[in-house]
Amino acid sequence: MSGQSKKAVVLLSGGLDSATVLAMAREQGFTSYAISFDYGQRHRVELEASVAVAKAGGAAGHVTVPVGLDILGGSALTAAIDVPKGREADQMGADIPVTYVPARNTVFLSLALGYAEVLGARDIFIGANALDYSGYPDCRPEYIAAFERLANLATRAGVEGRPFTIHAPLIHMSKAEIIREGVRLGVDYAITRSCYDPDEAGRACGECDSCILRRKGFAEAGVGDPTVYE
Amino acid sequence: MSGQSKKAVVLLSGGLDSATVLAMAREQGFTSYAISFDYGQRHRVELEASVAVAKAGGAAGHVTVPVGLDILGGSALTAAIDVPKGREADQMGADIPVTYVPARNTVFLSLALGYAEVLGARDIFIGANALDYSGYPDCRPEYIAAFERLANLATRAGVEGRPFTIHAPLIHMSKAEIIREGVRLGVDYAITRSCYDPDEAGRACGECDSCILRRKGFAEAGVGDPTVYE
Repeated sequence: MSGQSKKAVVLLSGGLDSATVLAMAREQGFTSYAISFDYGQRHRVELEASVAVAKAGGAAGHVTVPVGLDILGGSALTAAIDVPKGREADQMGADIPVTYVPARNTVFLSLALGYAEVLGARDIFIGANALDYSGYPDCRPEYIAAFERLANLATRAGVEGRPFTIHAPLIHMSKAEIIREGVRLGVDYAITRSCYDPDEAGRACGECDSCILRRKGFAEAGVGDPTVYE
Repeated sequence: MSGQSKKAVVLLSGGLDSATVLAMAREQGFTSYAISFDYGQRHRVELEASVAVAKAGGAAGHVTVPVGLDILGGSALTAAIDVPKGREADQMGADIPVTYVPARNTVFLSLALGYAEVLGARDIFIGANALDYSGYPDCRPEYIAAFERLANLATRAGVEGRPFTIHAPLIHMSKAEIIREGVRLGVDYAITRSCYDPDEAGRACGECDSCILRRKGFAEAGVGDPTVYE
């Protein structure tokens, strides 16, 4: 591998955070392979966005893996449960909301791990965020560390002494800091989609937790918000 | 939950090991919910077998979750790589074979974890086996323990103090011991399918690692082998 750039797998949702992570991986000299998930999400517009984001971010490859999380039920993001609207940003961390998808990041990181092993990549990037994290347990630093330990027990590469590193570069950043970093790296946020409940034209609702955090982030960063709202 | 039996999620492949695990969970008083995976495996006959095994084993529910591991490639079980034939059983543990599917058990346990959280189950059973384990890193006791730790950091239930237990009751058993235990519990092995490379009629090849371990197990257990071979 000497003389070549190192490969990394980057989890890409089509949202603001993962678009920024893709740009950060690139700046660190990685050749990125993006992985997205078709898990029956109601906000399917993010899958189209992920294709544009992967291209704009210079990914060398991009796979979209179908995974039937909707069959398991239990979340407002996949099942017929209303997405909550109009919550205050500073209340979101207190409880785990109904938009929590059981074990989602574990499923996604597992598939990213499989992809990394096939590619011969040793680095996996995820846009998990513990600050504006909307109350999800699988976005905390101790969770990311536990997954890294697991990855090195689970795989041929780990067993053979070529360990994996799970990078979660946004984990302690505010949404405003993420946006400022992305702007510095040239991320085009106009092509990203964060809304949990967009309309049929793909326009953001402006009122779900994800929209509220995103809106607040642009305002605090002092950056114009390119999001198209309903 | 007092007065009711506890719920458990049981990973069910349609093979010999998981059929035995389902019977063991039942004997321990659990109400079982089976979960199977359509991951593009070439031995798709096991998916049909899993339906019969779930029914015979008294499962209260059974879901089959599509998950696109075949998109990631890298394994003889999903890709256009030949399944090795005619290896000796005592050589199988030395190397990780081409039938290894990258991160498969991590992906499967993650989805089982999501199903358990939705059901309110706290127990997950998997037929991982470290003895006749065919060289897979994600079938070792330290891997199972690491997944349990992860599960309790990853989930709402774990965070709220209702921890998960990952049961791998076969982990130190030989194939012969598994078969004897299953016979004692009334498992009908004629409806199970283990072969990695069955013919179009669903008959076992008799020569892949999985067939060789199964055949040897029946012989050592002194139990008649009900498998239909090509």
